[in-house]
Amino acid sequence: MPRTSVEVEQELARLEIETPSWGYGDSGTRFATFPQAGRPRDPFERIDDAAEVHRLTAAAPAVALHFPWDRVDDVGELRRHAESRGLRIGAVNPNLFQESDYKLGSVANPDPAVRARAVAHLLECVGFATELGSTAQSLWLADGLNYVGQDDLRGRRERVLDCLREVYAALPPEQRLLLEYKPFEPAFYATDVADWGSALLFCEKLGDRAAVLVDFGHHLLGANIEQIVAILAGEGRLGGFHFNNRKYADDDLIVGSVNPFELFAVFVELGTDLPRLTIDQAHNVEAKVEAMTLSVVNVQEAFAKALLVDREALAAAQAEGDVLGAHELLLDAYRADVRDLCAKVRVAGGGAADPIATLRESGYVARITQERGAAAPVSAGWNA
Amino acid sequence: MPRTSVEVEQELARLEIETPSWGYGDSGTRFATFPQAGRPRDPFERIDDAAEVHRLTAAAPAVALHFPWDRVDDVGELRRHAESRGLRIGAVNPNLFQESDYKLGSVANPDPAVRARAVAHLLECVGFATELGSTAQSLWLADGLNYVGQDDLRGRRERVLDCLREVYAALPPEQRLLLEYKPFEPAFYATDVADWGSALLFCEKLGDRAAVLVDFGHHLLGANIEQIVAILAGEGRLGGFHFNNRKYADDDLIVGSVNPFELFAVFVELGTDLPRLTIDQAHNVEAKVEAMTLSVVNVQEAFAKALLVDREALAAAQAEGDVLGAHELLLDAYRADVRDLCAKVRVAGGGAADPIATLRESGYVARITQERGAAAPVSAGWNA
Amino acid sequence: MPRTSVEVEQELARLEIETPSWGYGDSGTRFATFPQAGRPRDPFERIDDAAEVHRLTAAAPAVALHFPWDRVDDVGELRRHAESRGLRIGAVNPNLFQESDYKLGSVANPDPAVRARAVAHLLECVGFATELGSTAQSLWLADGLNYVGQDDLRGRRERVLDCLREVYAALPPEQRLLLEYKPFEPAFYATDVADWGSALLFCEKLGDRAAVLVDFGHHLLGANIEQIVAILAGEGRLGGFHFNNRKYADDDLIVGSVNPFELFAVFVELGTDLPRLTIDQAHNVEAKVEAMTLSVVNVQEAFAKALLVDREALAAAQAEGDVLGAHELLLDAYRADVRDLCAKVRVAGGGAADPIATLRESGYVARITQERGAAAPVSAGWNA
Amino acid sequence: MPRTSVEVEQELARLEIETPSWGYGDSGTRFATFPQAGRPRDPFERIDDAAEVHRLTAAAPAVALHFPWDRVDDVGELRRHAESRGLRIGAVNPNLFQESDYKLGSVANPDPAVRARAVAHLLECVGFATELGSTAQSLWLADGLNYVGQDDLRGRRERVLDCLREVYAALPPEQRLLLEYKPFEPAFYATDVADWGSALLFCEKLGDRAAVLVDFGHHLLGANIEQIVAILAGEGRLGGFHFNNRKYADDDLIVGSVNPFELFAVFVELGTDLPRLTIDQAHNVEAKVEAMTLSVVNVQEAFAKALLVDREALAAAQAEGDVLGAHELLLDAYRADVRDLCAKVRVAGGGAADPIATLRESGYVARITQERGAAAPVSAGWNA
Repeated sequence: MPRTSVEVEQELARLEIETPSWGYGDSGTRFATFPQAGRPRDPFERIDDAAEVHRLTAAAPAVALHFPWDRVDDVGELRRHAESRGLRIGAVNPNLFQESDYKLGSVANPDPAVRARAVAHLLECVGFATELGSTAQSLWLADGLNYVGQDDLRGRRERVLDCLREVYAALPPEQRLLLEYKPFEPAFYATDVADWGSALLFCEKLGDRAAVLVDFGHHLLGANIEQIVAILAGEGRLGGFHFNNRKYADDDLIVGSVNPFELFAVFVELGTDLPRLTIDQAHNVEAKVEAMTLSVVNVQEAFAKALLVDREALAAAQAEGDVLGAHELLLDAYRADVRDLCAKVRVAGGGAADPIATLRESGYVARITQERGAAAPVSAGWNA
Repeated sequence: MPRTSVEVEQELARLEIETPSWGYGDSGTRFATFPQAGRPRDPFERIDDAAEVHRLTAAAPAVALHFPWDRVDDVGELRRHAESRGLRIGAVNPNLFQESDYKLGSVANPDPAVRARAVAHLLECVGFATELGSTAQSLWLADGLNYVGQDDLRGRRERVLDCLREVYAALPPEQRLLLEYKPFEPAFYATDVADWGSALLFCEKLGDRAAVLVDFGHHLLGANIEQIVAILAGEGRLGGFHFNNRKYADDDLIVGSVNPFELFAVFVELGTDLPRLTIDQAHNVEAKVEAMTLSVVNVQEAFAKALLVDREALAAAQAEGDVLGAHELLLDAYRADVRDLCAKVRVAGGGAADPIATLRESGYVARITQERGAAAPVSAGWNA
Repeated sequence: MPRTSVEVEQELARLEIETPSWGYGDSGTRFATFPQAGRPRDPFERIDDAAEVHRLTAAAPAVALHFPWDRVDDVGELRRHAESRGLRIGAVNPNLFQESDYKLGSVANPDPAVRARAVAHLLECVGFATELGSTAQSLWLADGLNYVGQDDLRGRRERVLDCLREVYAALPPEQRLLLEYKPFEPAFYATDVADWGSALLFCEKLGDRAAVLVDFGHHLLGANIEQIVAILAGEGRLGGFHFNNRKYADDDLIVGSVNPFELFAVFVELGTDLPRLTIDQAHNVEAKVEAMTLSVVNVQEAFAKALLVDREALAAAQAEGDVLGAHELLLDAYRADVRDLCAKVRVAGGGAADPIATLRESGYVARITQERGAAAPVSAGWNA
Repeated sequence: MPRTSVEVEQELARLEIETPSWGYGDSGTRFATFPQAGRPRDPFERIDDAAEVHRLTAAAPAVALHFPWDRVDDVGELRRHAESRGLRIGAVNPNLFQESDYKLGSVANPDPAVRARAVAHLLECVGFATELGSTAQSLWLADGLNYVGQDDLRGRRERVLDCLREVYAALPPEQRLLLEYKPFEPAFYATDVADWGSALLFCEKLGDRAAVLVDFGHHLLGANIEQIVAILAGEGRLGGFHFNNRKYADDDLIVGSVNPFELFAVFVELGTDLPRLTIDQAHNVEAKVEAMTLSVVNVQEAFAKALLVDREALAAAQAEGDVLGAHELLLDAYRADVRDLCAKVRVAGGGAADPIATLRESGYVARITQERGAAAPVSAGWNA
């Protein structure tokens, strides 16, 4: 028996998505970053944009931060600013990939001084999280190699593990360590934490509060992401999910813009015991606040459709080996038009029936453009 | 300091490759199988072909078997036949993918009767291995789904684990269970043991004598296979390696025919503590005995080049972060022409200096063609 | 201004899909073909199944044939049988990949005798098409190489062109030559007609009635198929489209089962001036008549959604550079639930409101199973 | 009969590679650009580095330029500087991807004013080439879309064609227009010139002096690049080749560092009638002058091995359908150690026997580091 409408609405109302502070700033490719008018000038304005997305969608009550990008003198101010805007602080994301020292890696670097610096930053972020009321470190390591032979693959794993153990030992009990994997970019021969198996091995060695973070775009083409979600959830090690979409590599496009059916399949696998859900996108050419709003709406709709699946009938068809009968039960839920359902839940939560139209009519973008002014030009990664 | 010539020759002489009985028979694609003249008519003739490859290369002293393809009334006869030809029996490969019962899976099948049948076959193969003097079950599960929703991904993992536990419990102490993974084909939506992480999780739950088998072609495009080898070896779970090469999917071409540098990189990572090494190819259009001989030669050459790497200098360059210096040390070893070196080692072991030329001049193929006759036409997978 | 409901229904009612005779027979992978009960025993029964799909969907009025698979003594009988079932004959598909002679290619084969045989079969198919009232040869060449150096890439192109010229010269004016491309399988190093550019070059050299046939699964991962459709349509060389879906390689799954949004995008690009549309799938584990029915329904729904796009508003948003506004117009059309709309059009055309449920209730499968009996076991491509 | 040593040396001595001025500057990914000490501060110093590579390799006599990156008040000075260093100017590369105006495309932009600006830059570059004595415009268009529906795919092609026609009309007779293709990045949904077929269609419409430029990394995974080379050469439209290597996406690694056998296969297909050959790499973590020198050496060796192929024997084996015999002829040439041969040719041309060792011993890098100083930090594409 499928869920009743009331049950669906109740579950849907519980959906909470974190939006990323860095998703409101300018982003680009190695070829160019195109600055957008109205771009937030500091972390506080990034939080303001996140609050606007939550105001419209009633489903984005947390904002994930990135350090040092969101560094301010007193991080407590960020927390208070967020709370004053109706938000809480989501995961804290350390940054171990931008400084010159990290050219050959951070926690995997052959140079112990660089590793020490990386660990110091990670420990600093643990402190930030405590001050911010955040319950997770969300760690992506860009470490890797560009050439066969460049470094010792096994030695690097040991170095990574040693560093992570130091950080894990310093975690207060309310914080988890989420370890993200990514097959390539910026490293183009070997990445030290390249796939879910590699991340899981580290987590198992660290302890119960270490878990794997799955990012849609961080897979080789063809990977079955919902199956990875199923395995990690089965092992009790699914720490979170990063939403975006890609067609080619790690494109960081709006979630649901390439294959919304895959997004639905992920939610079917996630069920209602949802892990931390965060948007992680790069809006290179599109309006950022609108892009984030659309992303939240796309996620809501995928979750709503997944809630419509008749799980009992599905289990019965699966048990009988009714290949098409089982598949069609999923198709049926997916084909439903859930726009009205989602609108109803949003409005009940204080959001907008049509968040995009409301945003466009609100004048928000015009206002921030005027207040914040045109952004300064930004250099790209390729500079002759 | 690099190895001396004598040391290189000694290590190279220790290389042992298993050739697969099924690699001497006809194989094809779903579109067609082209029968070859001289194709062995039974398991004994397949062992004869394997012996010819070992006679030429002095590096292929074992033959892996596949059941029921290699079923005979008394499997002891196979062992005696192999030994009379100077070979031993390598891994035993159960087959859980060809019978109609397995349409929706074998050990993952929702139907307990089918799972019981699959387990019975696996147990039968354990018995065969004991009689054959084989020390490994090499298990590839074709189980998987073609459609989203077709079956419950987590339930299937539990079924697989239950079945494998039953088999593992029956393994005599001298046998290992090697678990192979493969991302797709014949299942095209989800495969139950799709990647190394998935296989490793099963092995960890089974016990110390379960280990992962890595097949070159069983990866999504772009996967860094030598890194997977490094991780599994580091965990003590690298059970073996299947040689072949591919450009697109699981093409099963001659090892070294698409990217010999990648083969070299795998050997650099394997070092001299080699796991079980087996060729697993499908020779659809090429002469089979020659193809197998060439494969062994390609593997010998890749191993020989890896032995030439100056490991001390490499470690020093890596420690200094000398990216290109370290990479160039590998390039230097790879650029060497090791044909004479390999010929010398082959001859010393009783093989041929030029195995391909010797095979072509020997009349072996003409003789088996006459003795065995033309093969019967074989149907393809696609039949309207 | 979007189309009115009446306009959408009128366009939708014009949708005509060819189903393939070979899609009703058993198919499999190189590992196994699982015979299905009720499998048609001859071309006439395959046409019967096609008629059933048309009866249910009112959108599949043609059946494509494959020779020699559909060879009968008098092909005129096939035409009369189809017409008596309310169908017409769609494209004729020659088969140049199953016979032993074609091991090293058909029209690209270095042996002129093999090429002559291939041309003779193609000419025979032109004759069949004339008798059958078919207006197209739909030609897929499996020709290719498995190894670097195996044959001369340029020489092969010349041979292919010479052979196709001979066939093209024999085409009666009402027939077109559709040339399909496929990047790999069964050839695993180089395929002679591997991509749309290669196919287009041949067509340009042949003449106006040669056009390219696009198959969903015949692309490297990541290819933008709707863009290829746009280019070929712009050049006046889009000859037709083969529907199926894939996640990994050329999986031949049910169209719309992996990424229904991509299918929608293709229809947005196709517009209402539709080329020849054919289903080309391999139903390895699922019920065949139901799979075909579902496929037609999936195509109908994708076309219906594409018809809902507000083209005027879209053009305006595009002209303004409103990235998200334009994208959202497509999303809006895609999110609609068009099941009722499609049901209405089907019923108006004489089909079923719910074709799958109607099929399941009709007893059709039980009846053909009883009449036709269980199918004989079928060999797979891999036979030791 | 294979070439004699003398013939091989003569052909090898004719090899001329263009190195790119932009390959000597800092480059990075969207995540970070790590500035290198000794980085050239202006186009003149970039030419100096190119001269050093030619001095070492005797095979890199031309330097390709990129505008506006290499803009100086008087471009004639660049030419004189190059000539004074023993170099000539290679292809001129316009840049249509870095300015804010190009956010939604350059020559495909919906805004005619942006297209006019792009055309003006292209025409300016034609003028530069004339002054520089360059004989080619090498054009890569970054134009594309990130979202389905963002713009009209067919309309964009017409705009591109109109703009290119204007530029082509202005080309002096000694200049060719080389059109590069790239499947994705920076556009992640659709790129306007995405594959060789698309580029070729534009060239055919432009005229005889328009030709396609093939870049190793600009293909979807699995693409058979040597086959594309063969087709374009057969059509008389192979304008040039960009060397680099990749494992995942457009990684821009050192040519020959991922699959040197593929590089060899490309040279087998190119033969001795070589098109314009240019290195196009991004050295993110490795020493740039050494990386470029190694690249030239890798190309020399691949070409040398291709020259060793016994073409007569190859043609004979191919004609006989001797699959492995033909393939083994290529393997034989590839297995040769050509380091001494290449050293001999380099020394005869005035270069170094061991260019890398000579560079390391020369103190060149220390000298430029001291002269040029440490580079300023460079921003990455991602800036919150």
